[in-house]
Amino acid sequence: MAPQLEPYFKKVDELADSFIDRLRKAVAIPSVSADEERRKDVVRMGQFLASELEALGAEVQQRPLGKQPGKEHLDLPPVVIARYGNDKNKRTILVYGHYDVQPALIEDGWATKPFELTIDDKGRMYGRGSTDDKGPVLGWLNAIEAHQKAGVDFPVNLLCCFEGMEEYGSEGLDDFINAEAKKFFKDADAVCISDNYWLGTEKPCLTYGLRGCNYYSIAISGPGQDLHSGVFGGTAQEPMTDLALILSKLVDNRGKILIPGINEMVAPLTEEEKALYGPIAYTMDNLYESLGSQTAIFSDKENTLMARWRYPSLSIHGVEGAFAAPGAKTVIPAKVIGKFSIRTVPDMESAKVNECVYKYIRDEFAKLNSKNTLDVYCQHEGKWWVASPKHWNFSAASKAVKEVFGVEPDMTREGGSIPVTITFEQATGKNVLLLPMGSSTDAAHSINEKLDRRNYIEGTKLLGAYLHYVAEEPMVEAK
Amino acid sequence: MAPQLEPYFKKVDELADSFIDRLRKAVAIPSVSADEERRKDVVRMGQFLASELEALGAEVQQRPLGKQPGKEHLDLPPVVIARYGNDKNKRTILVYGHYDVQPALIEDGWATKPFELTIDDKGRMYGRGSTDDKGPVLGWLNAIEAHQKAGVDFPVNLLCCFEGMEEYGSEGLDDFINAEAKKFFKDADAVCISDNYWLGTEKPCLTYGLRGCNYYSIAISGPGQDLHSGVFGGTAQEPMTDLALILSKLVDNRGKILIPGINEMVAPLTEEEKALYGPIAYTMDNLYESLGSQTAIFSDKENTLMARWRYPSLSIHGVEGAFAAPGAKTVIPAKVIGKFSIRTVPDMESAKVNECVYKYIRDEFAKLNSKNTLDVYCQHEGKWWVASPKHWNFSAASKAVKEVFGVEPDMTREGGSIPVTITFEQATGKNVLLLPMGSSTDAAHSINEKLDRRNYIEGTKLLGAYLHYVAEEPMVEAK
Repeated sequence: MAPQLEPYFKKVDELADSFIDRLRKAVAIPSVSADEERRKDVVRMGQFLASELEALGAEVQQRPLGKQPGKEHLDLPPVVIARYGNDKNKRTILVYGHYDVQPALIEDGWATKPFELTIDDKGRMYGRGSTDDKGPVLGWLNAIEAHQKAGVDFPVNLLCCFEGMEEYGSEGLDDFINAEAKKFFKDADAVCISDNYWLGTEKPCLTYGLRGCNYYSIAISGPGQDLHSGVFGGTAQEPMTDLALILSKLVDNRGKILIPGINEMVAPLTEEEKALYGPIAYTMDNLYESLGSQTAIFSDKENTLMARWRYPSLSIHGVEGAFAAPGAKTVIPAKVIGKFSIRTVPDMESAKVNECVYKYIRDEFAKLNSKNTLDVYCQHEGKWWVASPKHWNFSAASKAVKEVFGVEPDMTREGGSIPVTITFEQATGKNVLLLPMGSSTDAAHSINEKLDRRNYIEGTKLLGAYLHYVAEEPMVEAK
Repeated sequence: MAPQLEPYFKKVDELADSFIDRLRKAVAIPSVSADEERRKDVVRMGQFLASELEALGAEVQQRPLGKQPGKEHLDLPPVVIARYGNDKNKRTILVYGHYDVQPALIEDGWATKPFELTIDDKGRMYGRGSTDDKGPVLGWLNAIEAHQKAGVDFPVNLLCCFEGMEEYGSEGLDDFINAEAKKFFKDADAVCISDNYWLGTEKPCLTYGLRGCNYYSIAISGPGQDLHSGVFGGTAQEPMTDLALILSKLVDNRGKILIPGINEMVAPLTEEEKALYGPIAYTMDNLYESLGSQTAIFSDKENTLMARWRYPSLSIHGVEGAFAAPGAKTVIPAKVIGKFSIRTVPDMESAKVNECVYKYIRDEFAKLNSKNTLDVYCQHEGKWWVASPKHWNFSAASKAVKEVFGVEPDMTREGGSIPVTITFEQATGKNVLLLPMGSSTDAAHSINEKLDRRNYIEGTKLLGAYLHYVAEEPMVEAK
């Protein structure tokens, strides 16, 4: 039976101004995790969240993560974990978010004070952290409050995991999640993360996949020290020349990876999957707008989305050790390190990808017959993730979107990685859903970050409705 | 008739300790031109030189060069110019040197205090500026003093031009030389610069050529701002991919320039020139030692020296705008600027070189059929220089070397550029000779810079002897 959501929705609308006020208070705390000087504000933001949750009747703990690696004088901000409800007859949903934010200075070009929530006449609420990720985190708190004030029973037990270091590599979080998976988080039936974005501005989406990332270094060295190109140019084999030749053989400028074996590992496109792309609310103009140019590889939506989500890509990021400053320096760098990464997708196995990369680069370097020395290695590897969009966790979210927004959500993947997704999946063994609140124009990490009032208030309705549908979904597991 | 040099040589040997003391005083003044805080020491060093020259009876002026461009609160150090002797019946030789030095901190790895002349048991005199260029500059002063004390008539009129900004781009000097060419320097019959090095450690050389340098930027831009490789990898044409493809087509790793038209401009090797390379005191081990590796392109001396001196070379210096730091950053740079330079030689014309470079890079970029935007331009161009080693200026120096060291000097070129050489040649219209005092192991610009006692004392004899032979050379001009 369909849950009765009207009283809840009505209460959310009534409380909208106070929810915005909650966001205003949160944005006012400059919880910049990358800035040592702001660490006290990060801690203050965690305290704010904990207090709000306690006021709502949740059982809250602020769990220390120890010292910050490499900065031993600095405590990591605590993970705020909470339980709201402990009814054995209800499902338990574990939600994740983060309460730290990216740096922001008005001098960077903000039109308004970054730590003062400023709402324009179109309902755009500007402020650092508004969409990433304070708005979504507070959405869960708002949902609890609206249920209480509407006198509607909260449909699930809610477990919260809110961290304060996401914008600085989630230091210490993986170990914490792994340790708590069978303790504080042991009752979780599924996981929901609201920390990404709609593909556009009008239509909500559910995200069921992320690409992985294997990051490589190609180090080529020759002379004992940097050389003067006047004195040695023409007489020494230059590592930079070798590197340019190798870098030119990795990928063509249509995005085709030239390393044998890589493309062969990609899961074939099924008719079923192919059918998913057509209905997605996305246009080439959306891409051009976010690129800031028309320099796209494909000219159609389907190929663009597939290239972004379900095919691997290879990007050359830069060269370490060479001259990189403005101006002119006549150096022959003694050792250069070319950096590139491959975004990985099903069914690429990381170890096999590495093997193909190493073999190809070593073979190509051998063809150069250079006296220089090559070293190629993987700096880090992050696995791709794909969940089943047919799991009840997704069905519930899909029904909630339909209920709140009147449309079927787009089923999307992301080209980038959200490592905590895989950590939760692996640690809990449960289905993970990415359920975004903000839109593609929110400018997370940029100047003038914002969250639209509509996305925040309807998003709060969505989170609550999702929990109701979760409670109603049949128990058939289809992870 | 051969000049009678014995009394002069004997006096130089007698005064050796006081000459070393003069160098000690000069090294003790940390005249680092790149360091704003040290500007007063640069000025103090100019004052020291001026006082020493005045004490020797020279007419001295310290000429201001105005404010330092870009640092308008800072006066450029003065050019110290001097005239010693004003006899219409004598030739007039204009000598150039510089009294500023490279930065030096003991923390950089110096084995001794950099601004304290420290002499080891092999007569190696360590100290910043010892060989570059305080030793050679003081060599001229020593020569004057030894003539006076030996009661030997000074054979020429000497004009001095000693600057204090050589290690920081010789700010303001070109204009000064051009302005004084027909004034203070108008009597100069030839120019002698002692500011480079022997090819090895045993055999002196005379340097008659320098390569030029044209420095290029290849700017490729696409997106409006840097992109996240997860979100956009596979969908955007990446400027760095295009750049890698272009950079790979400039030069092969045997040093062969792949830009059509460049190699065709090089003056053919004559049998006469070819014969110059055989006798030169240089071995592959010398190259390996200075490279700090065996990663040489050629395995024989002749080809190595020709590649360094008389053929062009192309070096890729690096990439601006891409990720260049240690670590891993998953950026797609929006605009990247590849930097490379071509060392130019006779008979390459700079404008034609530029034309070939621009055409080739534009054509190669067009082949890529990229939506990105290319801009290729020359950052700066410095002309190559070759003097006639048959001019009396060189004959005189050659005889002086034979007299002092008992060997014919190597006739060398340099792979790098010394721009002031061309400035003097063009401004005065006279022959310019590079007459080095230090050896290849002196480590100018590096830690543990030194000048060997032998090079300093015999070098002082050489400078004096050179002036005597200059006075004796027939008046036949063969510039």
